[in-house]
Amino acid sequence: MIEKILEGDIRTVSRALSLIEEGGGQGTRSLLKSLYPYSRHSLVVGITGGTGTGKSTLTECLAREFLKTTQKVGIIAVDPTSPFSGGAILGDRIRMQSLATDPNVFIRSMATRGRLGGLSAAVNDALVVLAAAGYEVLLVETVGVGQDEVDIAETADVTVLVLVPGMGDDVQTIKAGIMEIGDVFVLNKADRDGAEKARLELDALCSFLVPKQGWVPPIVETVATEGKGLSELVSAILDFKSAVMESESMLKQRIGFCRKRLVDLLRDRLVDEILSKVGDRELDHYAERVAVHELDPYSAVEELVKLGKL
Amino acid sequence: MIEKILEGDIRTVSRALSLIEEGGGQGTRSLLKSLYPYSRHSLVVGITGGTGTGKSTLTECLAREFLKTTQKVGIIAVDPTSPFSGGAILGDRIRMQSLATDPNVFIRSMATRGRLGGLSAAVNDALVVLAAAGYEVLLVETVGVGQDEVDIAETADVTVLVLVPGMGDDVQTIKAGIMEIGDVFVLNKADRDGAEKARLELDALCSFLVPKQGWVPPIVETVATEGKGLSELVSAILDFKSAVMESESMLKQRIGFCRKRLVDLLRDRLVDEILSKVGDRELDHYAERVAVHELDPYSAVEELVKLGKL
Repeated sequence: MIEKILEGDIRTVSRALSLIEEGGGQGTRSLLKSLYPYSRHSLVVGITGGTGTGKSTLTECLAREFLKTTQKVGIIAVDPTSPFSGGAILGDRIRMQSLATDPNVFIRSMATRGRLGGLSAAVNDALVVLAAAGYEVLLVETVGVGQDEVDIAETADVTVLVLVPGMGDDVQTIKAGIMEIGDVFVLNKADRDGAEKARLELDALCSFLVPKQGWVPPIVETVATEGKGLSELVSAILDFKSAVMESESMLKQRIGFCRKRLVDLLRDRLVDEILSKVGDRELDHYAERVAVHELDPYSAVEELVKLGKL
Repeated sequence: MIEKILEGDIRTVSRALSLIEEGGGQGTRSLLKSLYPYSRHSLVVGITGGTGTGKSTLTECLAREFLKTTQKVGIIAVDPTSPFSGGAILGDRIRMQSLATDPNVFIRSMATRGRLGGLSAAVNDALVVLAAAGYEVLLVETVGVGQDEVDIAETADVTVLVLVPGMGDDVQTIKAGIMEIGDVFVLNKADRDGAEKARLELDALCSFLVPKQGWVPPIVETVATEGKGLSELVSAILDFKSAVMESESMLKQRIGFCRKRLVDLLRDRLVDEILSKVGDRELDHYAERVAVHELDPYSAVEELVKLGKL
């Protein structure tokens, strides 16, 4: 499998991503270990923003724009998932199909199937595989609201925050909360009414941000559906890369992210180990006792820890 | 502290919630253990929906409505947090201040401060404290998009999904993904243009849902700002409670949630233990090696596990 992935074999890459999504295990871990050294030179671009901002179309167009100077581009679209059906229902993705036939573009939707591992861990693992398979630019599209999505944005080299004119007050306040993750701002649908007002608001919001390494996030106006502003967006991303990404303080930030990631991986690893010892039936038994208030969850966990160490 | 909380002393309750938010530790765990047996009789109502649906105002009005028949109501507002500043910036919350002076209402915003523990664990712990302090109805308001929020909705006894007329196509698709968590649907701002159309769409979407225990989620139309539809909403919530909540299959669902919660608690507990043994400096050292691609994260975790077991 390793060799085929390094050769860029799409089917094998796809299979590896499925394994990752399903949670992996020892086999997947050793595959990722082998691929890791080959995965260092890709540029990971996070694209985030609220629903209705046209992120998917923008991501698609951005991929096309990158293809002008890059051989292979990978796209991971992170889907908010229904916790019951396990299915990701986003009509948006369908629009990306125009790229699906391009052999130099790899597109994949990822969703949280189970709890163990978590979405952000799965995306990180997927990026290792795609980078090793020779995708030089990796676009990760998320809905920038939940913690998972924020985590993913954090691990990207450059994060593009997409906004549109004419969103309500509530959205404005949400924006304030996620502004800090943006390295480059996009005002998409910039031909819409209210674009100028939005631009002014955005300028005002940006003035509150503490510049990273003297970098003030540029605001790029786009009309993704008409292909406008995309070369400017690519330039802004590459500018950020050369100005900030390779600096000392970004290394510090990267170390911080790696630390978080290690803790996450460690957590999943440890719980996997204990649960494989304790067994499903025993866990169910404890869950039942907690559900009927016969036992509190804190004592149950203490007992499980003891059982797992036997 | 235990006694004061059982007496309903607001300051002590507030202090306990701060401890929980900060991550707790052994002391907080034993407090929660002692309170757990007293926490079984509250009704936990999750209120979720996208931004701009007027959830906060609805939550506030719903609290008032419940106060007509209930002594004490608690509200937990879950805030999407900026990962860098750690602050929750939601203007919405300010509107709830009219309730803040009512001694029978406890309002608290909660946000994910650190990573360990996670938001949904903190909210669950907070609910134990509030229930033990005699709050008979607990309203948990979330932004229904991220996994954290979905987790919280799952642990609620009844989940109210708030929608409004005239949201875009993207939002419709998101809705489809989270429809299944709704036990009662609210069409808020039902005096707006497009309410009838939204109602029809909602009926159509509902027809796809598999009824839980023969329960078809009712659609309640409200205009929260004018107090319209609130008594109907309370009735729908109580109907769900008596029709479904105490049934056999809901117990099964509760067991499933408890199981998930145990795994989450277990996970945090185990990683806490190992990290306290390994120490911050060692962890930083590994993070650094991973950041510069000297070591892959999977091997780093294996080494950390070994160190933690010494």
